[in-house]
Amino acid sequence: VSEPRATALFALDWGTTSARVYRLSGDGQVLGVREAPLGVQQVRNGAFPAALQTLLGDWADDPAPRLASGMIGSRQGWVEAPYVECPADPATLAERLCRTPGGEMTIVPGLICRDAEGVPDVIRGEETQIAGAIDADEGSVLAILPGTHSKWVRIDAGRIERFATYMTGELYAVLMAHSILGRLSAAPAAPGSGTQSGKAFARGVERGLHGPGLSHAIFGARTLALTGGLEASDVGDWLSGVLIGHEIKAGRAQLGADGAAMLPVRIIGTDALGARYVQALAQAGIAAARGPADAAARGLFDVAQRARLL
Amino acid sequence: VSEPRATALFALDWGTTSARVYRLSGDGQVLGVREAPLGVQQVRNGAFPAALQTLLGDWADDPAPRLASGMIGSRQGWVEAPYVECPADPATLAERLCRTPGGEMTIVPGLICRDAEGVPDVIRGEETQIAGAIDADEGSVLAILPGTHSKWVRIDAGRIERFATYMTGELYAVLMAHSILGRLSAAPAAPGSGTQSGKAFARGVERGLHGPGLSHAIFGARTLALTGGLEASDVGDWLSGVLIGHEIKAGRAQLGADGAAMLPVRIIGTDALGARYVQALAQAGIAAARGPADAAARGLFDVAQRARLL
Repeated sequence: VSEPRATALFALDWGTTSARVYRLSGDGQVLGVREAPLGVQQVRNGAFPAALQTLLGDWADDPAPRLASGMIGSRQGWVEAPYVECPADPATLAERLCRTPGGEMTIVPGLICRDAEGVPDVIRGEETQIAGAIDADEGSVLAILPGTHSKWVRIDAGRIERFATYMTGELYAVLMAHSILGRLSAAPAAPGSGTQSGKAFARGVERGLHGPGLSHAIFGARTLALTGGLEASDVGDWLSGVLIGHEIKAGRAQLGADGAAMLPVRIIGTDALGARYVQALAQAGIAAARGPADAAARGLFDVAQRARLL
Repeated sequence: VSEPRATALFALDWGTTSARVYRLSGDGQVLGVREAPLGVQQVRNGAFPAALQTLLGDWADDPAPRLASGMIGSRQGWVEAPYVECPADPATLAERLCRTPGGEMTIVPGLICRDAEGVPDVIRGEETQIAGAIDADEGSVLAILPGTHSKWVRIDAGRIERFATYMTGELYAVLMAHSILGRLSAAPAAPGSGTQSGKAFARGVERGLHGPGLSHAIFGARTLALTGGLEASDVGDWLSGVLIGHEIKAGRAQLGADGAAMLPVRIIGTDALGARYVQALAQAGIAAARGPADAAARGLFDVAQRARLL
């Protein structure tokens, strides 16, 4: 029988809709994970101390330090951890941590950069996942974090140089739930639910990669369905493909190129959505590596070590 | 006291949400107009004959012919008037009219074309407005019909060559009502309602015309609002500008160029939205003419003459 291992850090990935805590050992191993629907939007009247107690459960008596990343550090969160300007690396994050007023928890700041037109862009939580996924000795890497607001992040020697957000997941959700395109769809709105899912998705990706403006490209769901070129059950997969293809076209132009060559691409996120991005990137002629799992926990452990919290 | 003038044609512009009937004289003058919320989506169980009676009111006893265009000829309408392939001119429309089963009304067909990728596009109603707005002796013209689904139509010597749809108005509506961008907005969701409306709209147009992919460009509403670069009351106008700018960028590339030169542009639609398009096109260096009013009535009269309905 092995000795129960001591907790070195509670690493919290605390987002908009849910919160997750990893119990980590002194060598960064995951000893346990708990999750609760206690995202920033779910917690009323600033009741974050109680939410933390609920999330930790019987781990709450353990005095190990707590380090969090994500929307918990936003203006709508527990305490605002001001955005740090790019470029920034894990050491920068460790220098700019914020404490909650009661000292219950430490929070990693998000990052801000500006695009070619001077319009700002922000990330919160992704900077920590990248710290856990990309090593300084990897050189130049393009990290893609798919989701409601997909992030493309340009990294050089472990330092985040700049990034861009694409509202791919949110556009998909609102168009399927509230537009004429969703009303055409006969299937549940979840991607991958169509009868010819893979084929419809691939056709959509081609349209997004090579087609004209997005507001015209997506209307093809209606006209193809109307003329028998797309089954109603495949509308969702086709639209998902168009939006991801459009993201890849734009992201490659904005962030992907190093001179003429494409940077090595890493998809952070190990779910089914990540697999769709691998497929779509392959259609664009871009090979992509994936992982690791639990990038947020790894990144929080790295930042905690640098900040000497352990 | 002048003699009451006889009706030569009831010209019906019958769309998705509303229906309008023009009472026209033998020389095409508008003698009266009536409108009702009896669009195709509002009429249940195929009760179109009754809807026509309601719309006409005490004009219903007048035996003058009735000619309609718009979604009333779609699969969800009274009778399906199959799409006619482009190129097509007013004479083509006149040859391909459909009658309702009871002979109550004649319907102008919509048009279908294919874009460079072979994906179909369709219009219904706009072909008739164009017949009423563009003369055969005008040479090459690019007509823009702003709206929920904006249409850009390439016309040569009065013949519609090809066209493209942009979901500009619908994207604006769903993003303002259902996305994080709308939740940032402190003002009523109507365009033109912001405190610095014109300025915010113009900034948005620049972003749409010159910015990167649309799914990234629109996220600027969030980041600008977050960093004090955009008032909450101006989010709607800025977003409207981005979407219209994006439409202009894509439409110019798809349909606007005749060799190197831009075709003469005509905006059909005389409402406030048309004025926003004039402004946005001017920012893109494109001069645009407007009108005429009642293009649908003019087009229906022209088609009715060609079909010898009068």
